[in-house]
Amino acid sequence: MQVGMFQTPFVRPERTPKQVFDWAVRQAVTADNYNFSEYWVGEHGTLNWEGIPSPELVIAAAAAQTSKIKFGPLAHLLPYHHPATLALQTAWLSQILEGRYMLGVATGAYPTDAAVRGITDMSKNHAMMLEAIDIMRKVWKAEPFTHEGEYWNAGYPAADPKKPLRDTRPWNGEMQMAMTGLSAPSPSIGFAGTHGFIPASVYAGNDFLRSHFETYRENMTKAGRTSDRSAHRVVRDVVVAETDAEARKLAIAGVGKAWAEYLKPTYERFGVLQGLLHDSSMDPADVDAEYLAEHVWIVGSPETVRQKIEAWFDDLGGPFGTLLIYSHDYIDNPEPWEHSMDLLANTVAPSLSKVAVTEAA
Amino acid sequence: MQVGMFQTPFVRPERTPKQVFDWAVRQAVTADNYNFSEYWVGEHGTLNWEGIPSPELVIAAAAAQTSKIKFGPLAHLLPYHHPATLALQTAWLSQILEGRYMLGVATGAYPTDAAVRGITDMSKNHAMMLEAIDIMRKVWKAEPFTHEGEYWNAGYPAADPKKPLRDTRPWNGEMQMAMTGLSAPSPSIGFAGTHGFIPASVYAGNDFLRSHFETYRENMTKAGRTSDRSAHRVVRDVVVAETDAEARKLAIAGVGKAWAEYLKPTYERFGVLQGLLHDSSMDPADVDAEYLAEHVWIVGSPETVRQKIEAWFDDLGGPFGTLLIYSHDYIDNPEPWEHSMDLLANTVAPSLSKVAVTEAA
Repeated sequence: MQVGMFQTPFVRPERTPKQVFDWAVRQAVTADNYNFSEYWVGEHGTLNWEGIPSPELVIAAAAAQTSKIKFGPLAHLLPYHHPATLALQTAWLSQILEGRYMLGVATGAYPTDAAVRGITDMSKNHAMMLEAIDIMRKVWKAEPFTHEGEYWNAGYPAADPKKPLRDTRPWNGEMQMAMTGLSAPSPSIGFAGTHGFIPASVYAGNDFLRSHFETYRENMTKAGRTSDRSAHRVVRDVVVAETDAEARKLAIAGVGKAWAEYLKPTYERFGVLQGLLHDSSMDPADVDAEYLAEHVWIVGSPETVRQKIEAWFDDLGGPFGTLLIYSHDYIDNPEPWEHSMDLLANTVAPSLSKVAVTEAA
Repeated sequence: MQVGMFQTPFVRPERTPKQVFDWAVRQAVTADNYNFSEYWVGEHGTLNWEGIPSPELVIAAAAAQTSKIKFGPLAHLLPYHHPATLALQTAWLSQILEGRYMLGVATGAYPTDAAVRGITDMSKNHAMMLEAIDIMRKVWKAEPFTHEGEYWNAGYPAADPKKPLRDTRPWNGEMQMAMTGLSAPSPSIGFAGTHGFIPASVYAGNDFLRSHFETYRENMTKAGRTSDRSAHRVVRDVVVAETDAEARKLAIAGVGKAWAEYLKPTYERFGVLQGLLHDSSMDPADVDAEYLAEHVWIVGSPETVRQKIEAWFDDLGGPFGTLLIYSHDYIDNPEPWEHSMDLLANTVAPSLSKVAVTEAA
């Protein structure tokens, strides 16, 4: 199992943009140093907790300070960009990173982000995303075309020997794309399967995850592609420390604050909180950080976390490719959190991988 | 006189995107170390010599590695972005840089850049820019509005106490904007005066410059603002070395290559080459690097360059605020070029400032 990070970000609203940016870049550098395989960055224009409007700026700043880790926005919200401009920017970034780049895309789920772009009826966002993907793929080919679409016009000029164009294609001529899914059944995960995108499941309980795995497999198969679990990214909170008690304390201080103030109400609004709780008799009002640290997040010493992940894999019918942990706001005291990242990637994950291979065989 | 840099970029077409990006970031760090006051980065989606499609990525990468220098795109081509998305991104960047940010805007002059966005009739680009500026200024206020425009929709949501929004305003609530002018008379320089933008004149001879100064002054006065020369940026090639001979050799190797292969034909196409030559009897076909180093660029030892700049100021009726030098492709051997930057900013410019103050008094 590979370990990556999702910098949504979950940073407290009182942080300044410079603090948010510096933390996101620092986490990327730490993740690269600790052998994380990938680092994804969210895009939200207006949200007070998820305060990165332009993930490409974090990725560009981290590019020069890292050497192995792959980056990606997760996700660029396609209705809110001119697709041709975004195609040029993402292709350039994939070239700058010499292939260490993947592009997550989404329709945009938050009305306030949409409102800034003058969109009050979000029912068209999906159609806008489809047209944007079509345009971007054409621009990446760098061959002449003309597109007069429902939402945008685009094209590519014919080559003129007197004024040769710069090569605007992505690294190796291809863009690896990704899409997240939250609900079950998830149309986004189905779309990812149909189009060969990476599926990234935001953890909302094992029933939801099994549904995502199945939806992806079905759609990959229908599209004539071979699917295995290694493509799957699952996003879940994991905190590791030398002892269970230390890990619990660390988790509650950072992850707990984001859950209480932002994530729990957001998950309730999206109707996925119940799926997370593993216990339908649980009253959401009783869900506090102690409960979450025991039942929803994965928290403990390296050995405890190893056991919990293996039990999780058993319940899922096998391992998946990459565990993405959320980054949280440990800005005031980063070291214990960064040690947690180190323990997860370099102590827990290597101890798991044999089990995962055995189970998959 | 302050010294800044304009990273258009002029890099050879055979450079990879990573080389272009790394060079642009390195030049920014060098400029900051050598007390350059500002660093501007161009935006062109398709051009083979001017190979930066997304100046914000260079600025974001350089932000963390610099401490004093101000940055700006010069210019974001407004018809090619969703203005609300660009407003959020530029405001965030101005916050990340804690005010070390200025925003150059333009309509876009190159048909191939326009074609990628499906624009074949560029006559509307100016109207698109105006609408984009209007939208961006409204978004920067972060107060509710609805805009259903000719080219874009946009808005800002009302505050909801249950889902508070992140503050999306630029640093100190204001965005300093800038605009370049090339031709004379220059409508862009006039626009800059009317709207209180920074005027940046691409040097195309003293007649053009005097026209820009006058146009700016007139439009500032009409708009009820006080104008002095300190706001003016003038972009011109300057190369300094310990001796005149070394400077000439350095200039011809780098600046000369860009002029011969790219700039001279481009300037001919835009009809401004003749203005640069200072000699109407000169046949453009005879304009080679030797001629340019003597008559168009400012090249020499610190003392020679000091004298040439003072003579230039005399001919212009006084000094201006900031000299922007173009960055050129010295990727294979950066040190002599970086030494030229050091000499210009830290030997020549301080020796000039007394003269400039005396003349202005």
